[in-house]
Amino acid sequence: MLSKGEAGEAVRLAKVKTGVTWAQLAEAVGRPLAWTTAALLGQHPMTKEEAATAAALLELGEDAALAFQLQPTRGALEAAVPVDPTIYRLYEVIQVYGPTIKELIHEQCGDGIMSAINFRLDVSRVPDPAGDRVVITLDGKYLQYQWE
Amino acid sequence: MLSKGEAGEAVRLAKVKTGVTWAQLAEAVGRPLAWTTAALLGQHPMTKEEAATAAALLELGEDAALAFQLQPTRGALEAAVPVDPTIYRLYEVIQVYGPTIKELIHEQCGDGIMSAINFRLDVSRVPDPAGDRVVITLDGKYLQYQWE
Amino acid sequence: MLSKGEAGEAVRLAKVKTGVTWAQLAEAVGRPLAWTTAALLGQHPMTKEEAATAAALLELGEDAALAFQLQPTRGALEAAVPVDPTIYRLYEVIQVYGPTIKELIHEQCGDGIMSAINFRLDVSRVPDPAGDRVVITLDGKYLQYQWE
Amino acid sequence: MLSKGEAGEAVRLAKVKTGVTWAQLAEAVGRPLAWTTAALLGQHPMTKEEAATAAALLELGEDAALAFQLQPTRGALEAAVPVDPTIYRLYEVIQVYGPTIKELIHEQCGDGIMSAINFRLDVSRVPDPAGDRVVITLDGKYLQYQWE
Amino acid sequence: MLSKGEAGEAVRLAKVKTGVTWAQLAEAVGRPLAWTTAALLGQHPMTKEEAATAAALLELGEDAALAFQLQPTRGALEAAVPVDPTIYRLYEVIQVYGPTIKELIHEQCGDGIMSAINFRLDVSRVPDPAGDRVVITLDGKYLQYQWE
Amino acid sequence: MLSKGEAGEAVRLAKVKTGVTWAQLAEAVGRPLAWTTAALLGQHPMTKEEAATAAALLELGEDAALAFQLQPTRGALEAAVPVDPTIYRLYEVIQVYGPTIKELIHEQCGDGIMSAINFRLDVSRVPDPAGDRVVITLDGKYLQYQWE
Amino acid sequence: MLSKGEAGEAVRLAKVKTGVTWAQLAEAVGRPLAWTTAALLGQHPMTKEEAATAAALLELGEDAALAFQLQPTRGALEAAVPVDPTIYRLYEVIQVYGPTIKELIHEQCGDGIMSAINFRLDVSRVPDPAGDRVVITLDGKYLQYQWE
Amino acid sequence: MLSKGEAGEAVRLAKVKTGVTWAQLAEAVGRPLAWTTAALLGQHPMTKEEAATAAALLELGEDAALAFQLQPTRGALEAAVPVDPTIYRLYEVIQVYGPTIKELIHEQCGDGIMSAINFRLDVSRVPDPAGDRVVITLDGKYLQYQWE
Amino acid sequence: MLSKGEAGEAVRLAKVKTGVTWAQLAEAVGRPLAWTTAALLGQHPMTKEEAATAAALLELGEDAALAFQLQPTRGALEAAVPVDPTIYRLYEVIQVYGPTIKELIHEQCGDGIMSAINFRLDVSRVPDPAGDRVVITLDGKYLQYQWE
Amino acid sequence: MLSKGEAGEAVRLAKVKTGVTWAQLAEAVGRPLAWTTAALLGQHPMTKEEAATAAALLELGEDAALAFQLQPTRGALEAAVPVDPTIYRLYEVIQVYGPTIKELIHEQCGDGIMSAINFRLDVSRVPDPAGDRVVITLDGKYLQYQWE
Repeated sequence: MLSKGEAGEAVRLAKVKTGVTWAQLAEAVGRPLAWTTAALLGQHPMTKEEAATAAALLELGEDAALAFQLQPTRGALEAAVPVDPTIYRLYEVIQVYGPTIKELIHEQCGDGIMSAINFRLDVSRVPDPAGDRVVITLDGKYLQYQWE
Repeated sequence: MLSKGEAGEAVRLAKVKTGVTWAQLAEAVGRPLAWTTAALLGQHPMTKEEAATAAALLELGEDAALAFQLQPTRGALEAAVPVDPTIYRLYEVIQVYGPTIKELIHEQCGDGIMSAINFRLDVSRVPDPAGDRVVITLDGKYLQYQWE
Repeated sequence: MLSKGEAGEAVRLAKVKTGVTWAQLAEAVGRPLAWTTAALLGQHPMTKEEAATAAALLELGEDAALAFQLQPTRGALEAAVPVDPTIYRLYEVIQVYGPTIKELIHEQCGDGIMSAINFRLDVSRVPDPAGDRVVITLDGKYLQYQWE
Repeated sequence: MLSKGEAGEAVRLAKVKTGVTWAQLAEAVGRPLAWTTAALLGQHPMTKEEAATAAALLELGEDAALAFQLQPTRGALEAAVPVDPTIYRLYEVIQVYGPTIKELIHEQCGDGIMSAINFRLDVSRVPDPAGDRVVITLDGKYLQYQWE
Repeated sequence: MLSKGEAGEAVRLAKVKTGVTWAQLAEAVGRPLAWTTAALLGQHPMTKEEAATAAALLELGEDAALAFQLQPTRGALEAAVPVDPTIYRLYEVIQVYGPTIKELIHEQCGDGIMSAINFRLDVSRVPDPAGDRVVITLDGKYLQYQWE
Repeated sequence: MLSKGEAGEAVRLAKVKTGVTWAQLAEAVGRPLAWTTAALLGQHPMTKEEAATAAALLELGEDAALAFQLQPTRGALEAAVPVDPTIYRLYEVIQVYGPTIKELIHEQCGDGIMSAINFRLDVSRVPDPAGDRVVITLDGKYLQYQWE
Repeated sequence: MLSKGEAGEAVRLAKVKTGVTWAQLAEAVGRPLAWTTAALLGQHPMTKEEAATAAALLELGEDAALAFQLQPTRGALEAAVPVDPTIYRLYEVIQVYGPTIKELIHEQCGDGIMSAINFRLDVSRVPDPAGDRVVITLDGKYLQYQWE
Repeated sequence: MLSKGEAGEAVRLAKVKTGVTWAQLAEAVGRPLAWTTAALLGQHPMTKEEAATAAALLELGEDAALAFQLQPTRGALEAAVPVDPTIYRLYEVIQVYGPTIKELIHEQCGDGIMSAINFRLDVSRVPDPAGDRVVITLDGKYLQYQWE
Repeated sequence: MLSKGEAGEAVRLAKVKTGVTWAQLAEAVGRPLAWTTAALLGQHPMTKEEAATAAALLELGEDAALAFQLQPTRGALEAAVPVDPTIYRLYEVIQVYGPTIKELIHEQCGDGIMSAINFRLDVSRVPDPAGDRVVITLDGKYLQYQWE
Repeated sequence: MLSKGEAGEAVRLAKVKTGVTWAQLAEAVGRPLAWTTAALLGQHPMTKEEAATAAALLELGEDAALAFQLQPTRGALEAAVPVDPTIYRLYEVIQVYGPTIKELIHEQCGDGIMSAINFRLDVSRVPDPAGDRVVITLDGKYLQYQWE
């Protein structure tokens, strides 16, 4: 039986072997692109049908399909601060702009947070004559500190 | 003379005293909202005119205006992992979705990164009948690994 | 002007000087006991009236009353792992029972979390012939992972 | 022979295979729900009978039953600060409310602690029209600092 | 007003100035030697009388006497692992013999701990022809893991 | 061939299988209880005879007997700060009383340390009507700082 | 199938076995020396042809050739601060000269960075009568902080 | 009297006030640009004459001139891993290319290191039609491991 | 009154002002060179006479003389791993040769340590035609692990 | 094929099996004692002949002989701060005497370091009526900071 993390590794290798893309997987599974990618990398549980569809497309076995359905223990970085440059840039954004985002949430909404649970994200390439851009949209429900 | 960080603290206190908002500061300075907030919190250098305008609106002195113009040593978190819940949620997004974002950048653009230098961000409140949402847009130029 | 943390220290000293209790402060302010304690220790913002009432009772000045109203940067531990034995026991509970709590939340509610934002807590002493007990109740809204 | 931790992993996998719930396991073993969950995850030793009952229900072998009886080296988090969001919220509660809990224990009981050894916990879902709630009750004997 | 830690520093300096010993302080206060030392270093609260006696003997003022009575936030090491050689040897004992002590507690008493709250310690010099010895006695109530 | 650590794990499992106690092992080996426990857990080297006796009693093979004789690289905790509650209490004692012990060693003996090399320890259960106690005695040679 | 890191280890061993040099590998592959070395150590993806050429020269199999083509998760140090002396000297250069380099980039170019993505490096031995020198050239595109 | 670090801060502020550049300082002092910058930031000791020249040009007093002459305790980063993006890119280069540089030093020179003591560095802006480049040259004496 | 650490800083500054060397201080005090240096940097307590002599030579006041006599809390590095290159090389020696030194102590002496308490050290410059050498001699009493 | 570290472990086990000493290995190999020990523990590369001689004496195979010749990635401690008492004492020496050694190198030689590359060390047992001593000699070339 595969752990959730081992299944995620198997997915990455199977993508190279089969040439299947994340977009094709998302379409087959019928869920949003980023959700499907996160789920197959071990961060969300899939339904039995979603898991079977993804495993079949990737030519993976029962073990992987079962692992896709497991409840994850989330958290995917190997260290507190990521070193891969593509991921580190996200951390840098928090270092440089984290307090800015906090101030603007408080000014626009009040004393609360953007939920990371009732949350969706999108990653897209946006053409630009000065060089194409990567636009990442973080979209979470506003949650107000609320005691009573 | 104030350090860049002390000037940022002075701004937060002056906002409480004067009731000036980030939005008013950005409009007076004539720069985008998030940029202005980040600059006044010590993450970007301002021009002499921008600094004077902001200091005047906040009823701060020469020291602050000078500090606003200094070249920053960037990085605003007090620890490697932020503990304030509003900021921590951003870190949680990297923990849960960082590898997902990396996979999608590579699939859509190639072997590269989203720049955090040629970069802008936006924070906005989006009305939603199921509860308003906070939408944070990270928008950076795609940079391909390029050796020769 | 006092920072939020300095105001919290001033509260603790003023309590010793004046003999005022957290229970009296909560009653005067008109908010729950634990909320009031947390707010005066710098973890919640108070309204102008609440702040004035608390400052008066503690014989503290304008500075403290202003600090009580400031938006906090939350997080009160001096290190990632607390060393004070009374607080450490809470950390020990997470070390020993954290995965248990996670399993039971997932079994009883689904794939989600207990909110720490839409959240209240209570601390009470419960008489017991075998030795009185401390009962701490953590009560947060269940939030389901929800993408679309 | 299985280590205590490996046995805990085997339990989680066997639950998926057999469909047995923590509640059924606790009822069969005849111990409280949270205690049974914690024990099977490797944080408490079981008696021979409890271990045999649990192993049988989960269709696990002798090795697992033996591991359930071992004296544990407790502590279940993989890092000092947990990254799984469901568990992290408990850590956030300590960061935001730890000193509040400490103050209230001292005000209500004196200079002492809530025991994490003479201790029980309960996790329950409480229906609420504004959204169901997760209520976690930490219930430990009060221990006074006592020298002579 | 002095913090608990500053008062502890003041005690160490006052001891050099006045020549008063910990043994004399303990006798005057009427409490055990190690308890008195720990209290004056900021790890236990004193009664008003104890505090006044100690402050007088050390020729310290009201501020110190008040600080001696405050409820401490305990924990005296500046880093997770102490570097002063006299204190480090205690840490080394845990590194080398910690699991041994755990095994022997479990064999002699059951599944439980030595309390560090219902606890007293003694430090004494024991003459020995092969070189005098330091004997440190840790004496805490046995606490059994107990759920129901 | 077994490493010293693997042999220690084998000892713990063999104790469960054979029912042999640390006390019986110490008596058979003819060395003090705590020394024998520490040695079998991998913190001291045994002589060939001691190793053979212990291995025979535990029904372990040549590999274990050889490992018992190896020179150890000492240090048994998996992290700088132990999380198992039974061992953590020892660390808490250093956090709360470390500077107290240091002061008393200096007052009673001079500028030096308690050796952790010329050192023995004892763990015993002491009956007490208010609840039995665990008494841990650390007994090390006093070593004075000595240059010339 | 080999991971990127395992393939890098296989390359180092194969170099010892076959006697092939990095320079020969770079020439065969037709890419710069440092790029080829980094790629084969797992920090860049190769094309199918480059991978096949390198694998053949090193007498490695299909697995390695496939791994050479995989998208890397970059970052090659085993700890945040490297301990190997040859690599540590580079870290020391950042500790001693990092702020100097920052000041000079800002003075010569403006508020920006040297890209580590649009980047190439060269390592060469330079003869010198007082002892040959190692000259490392870091050559990256200047990127200006740019918001709009 | 100023510490070496405080003098470095004073230099940065004085540069803003006086408009003097690092290039002008280096020319006045008569030493290389990067050396002079590093020295004034507190990483090298200056001669009395160099110190006096620099202090005069920056309109700083005796204290600063004295501090410039002090033997430094080197190391300028506030954390093990730098967070300022301009400096972080240098750390990223070590993460991605450190083992590459090590391999090439060993292949070209033998078992040794590039000295960071017998060492000089240069930072220059190189015009490039595709965007100007920052070229950093690290130039250190090769030191072979040598025992006898 | 000065702390031990502040007195050490005062010594370093006074040496620059007065031109007094460590060798002259050691000779005046009548103790070995390295001992005297360590004591004045805050790592050993001096007698009243030694302290007075050193303070007079350095033109420091009563405060410093008193601080020189205080019992130190030893440990002089600002971080667990030193970054100053002159001190780091000592750490590198432990990283590269620590296990070698351990093996040789065990082979030549038995299961024990070199004492760092009954210990002296010497630093000397040794002329060498191939470049002078720094020779550091660590000389500590051998202490055998000894239980009974 | 063995890694350098695995070969070092094999050496330690082979020494126990064969009874060969480090001194015999050094004599057979014809290199200094400490160098030979360090090399066989994985910190230096051996020539083909040295490796063959050592492997033969230790009755190890081709794999080990090959590993002895590999270029090492140096650094032998499992954590930043060693916990084995024999090795920790070396770290304690740096904590207590590191700044002393730095001051004396600077006073005797100038602004530079003791090389850890052009370096040799010796460990010897020196008879002493008050108890034999361990004398460790660190002997490295003095390197002056030198830019031009």
